[in-house]
Amino acid sequence: MSSRMNVSCLPETKRVAVFGGTHGNEMSGIMLINMWIQNATEIKRNGLLTKPFIGNPRAVEKCTRYIDTDLNRAFTPENLSSPDEGLPYEVQRAKEINQMFGPKGSSDAYDVIFDLHNTTSNMGSTLILESLEVGPQPQGVLRSNVFESMRTIMKHALDFLELFNSGVEFPPCTVEVFRVQERMDYPRDINGNISAMVHPHLQDCDWEPLNRGDPMFLTFDGRTILYEGTNTVYPTFINEAAYYEKQQAFVTTCREKLAANAIRKASK
Amino acid sequence: MSSRMNVSCLPETKRVAVFGGTHGNEMSGIMLINMWIQNATEIKRNGLLTKPFIGNPRAVEKCTRYIDTDLNRAFTPENLSSPDEGLPYEVQRAKEINQMFGPKGSSDAYDVIFDLHNTTSNMGSTLILESLEVGPQPQGVLRSNVFESMRTIMKHALDFLELFNSGVEFPPCTVEVFRVQERMDYPRDINGNISAMVHPHLQDCDWEPLNRGDPMFLTFDGRTILYEGTNTVYPTFINEAAYYEKQQAFVTTCREKLAANAIRKASK
Repeated sequence: MSSRMNVSCLPETKRVAVFGGTHGNEMSGIMLINMWIQNATEIKRNGLLTKPFIGNPRAVEKCTRYIDTDLNRAFTPENLSSPDEGLPYEVQRAKEINQMFGPKGSSDAYDVIFDLHNTTSNMGSTLILESLEVGPQPQGVLRSNVFESMRTIMKHALDFLELFNSGVEFPPCTVEVFRVQERMDYPRDINGNISAMVHPHLQDCDWEPLNRGDPMFLTFDGRTILYEGTNTVYPTFINEAAYYEKQQAFVTTCREKLAANAIRKASK
Repeated sequence: MSSRMNVSCLPETKRVAVFGGTHGNEMSGIMLINMWIQNATEIKRNGLLTKPFIGNPRAVEKCTRYIDTDLNRAFTPENLSSPDEGLPYEVQRAKEINQMFGPKGSSDAYDVIFDLHNTTSNMGSTLILESLEVGPQPQGVLRSNVFESMRTIMKHALDFLELFNSGVEFPPCTVEVFRVQERMDYPRDINGNISAMVHPHLQDCDWEPLNRGDPMFLTFDGRTILYEGTNTVYPTFINEAAYYEKQQAFVTTCREKLAANAIRKASK
């Protein structure tokens, strides 16, 4: 049958890690992981080893994003191969995590890592490659609705892997995605200080179209700055707390459709 | 005239300080103060010296609540009289601020201090004694609506002082207030870890009545914990990020009416 031709056969998923606290002030993942470390019943699945893990325990203890440097940007080849002495805490931690769950690209590496994050942006539930972003939720706050969303998504993700391992074939589908295009900084004065805020018409409007001429920023002296790009874009991570230091007010994305093949487990 | 009998005559207000960044991750006050330090036109009033001031510059730089200890809890008589050597940063800073704007209770002290704060709780705009709390706004985020609210309130507060100084008499009035009663902690397990979240029916319901039998917390295993007090209370600071470390899920308040006398400036 021709439909069988397009089935992608992928290796069985044996080991899954679920990370929370990669950023120490993103509470939903931290609380879920701590709960699952105490009692893993909820994340057990047939034929699957599931490991809950706190990424940055020292930052969790201080309820801060990181101690020395952003752990989520620390898994570079340079860092992972650097000698052990005198490293920033998160670089040392990245090396340890790479040993435990990798090494990256090796046959010893875990098959899947879910990395649970929160955002202060109004993004709903967002899958970003391996990581999972759910908001809006302020840093250091645990909101039950955000917690339960993340818990439900993880349930479905693990159910999916269990079914996949059992040999179920999943049909082809089309998925709407947003592809990141450009990072937009806040307007700044000559000293580099922020001189405008996200415009109230853009605030909380993650994933909604931004067209040429739409309000984008509001300066402290009351002027509106318009979006002047020619293409419609879909801003997201709008006014995320952690991205002020990364000089990013939001990112623009474009909307695309991806066609996914049917998939099933490869025969041994 | 008998109505003249109840006018409270108060001394002229000569010097006013406006503080932002007492907590280094509460962005509205920080941005307003920085803006007013660069250009004070907006806060100038006849006959009033108005001083904009960043309370905790090192915490602002790191976008964190504090470096060593909470500055807003550091102005104790013990701290203010302690010898200078080896002090936590915020205790040292409290002593400096007390020298600049106090000393507390002395005739050299500023007449009024406005201390601008943000909260992650859904509290709207709240006047707390001298301090001013506006939310909801996540830590490290600047929302234009919260920024503009705070700016407007400060405009009216300074206008009021200018009118008062000019001799205008303000009529008596009745004000509805909420008086803090009890600090409520999160439910905890035997290790002291949080075992429940603010219930979704209570989340964001600051200032609304909580009656006996109303949902208060939701445990991680799905049980609802009800409010069992006999009196109706008005919770606020519900799920404030900064109060997890203070073991506080919310505070209860009772609603009261206060009668204020008419006031005017005392004759010299």
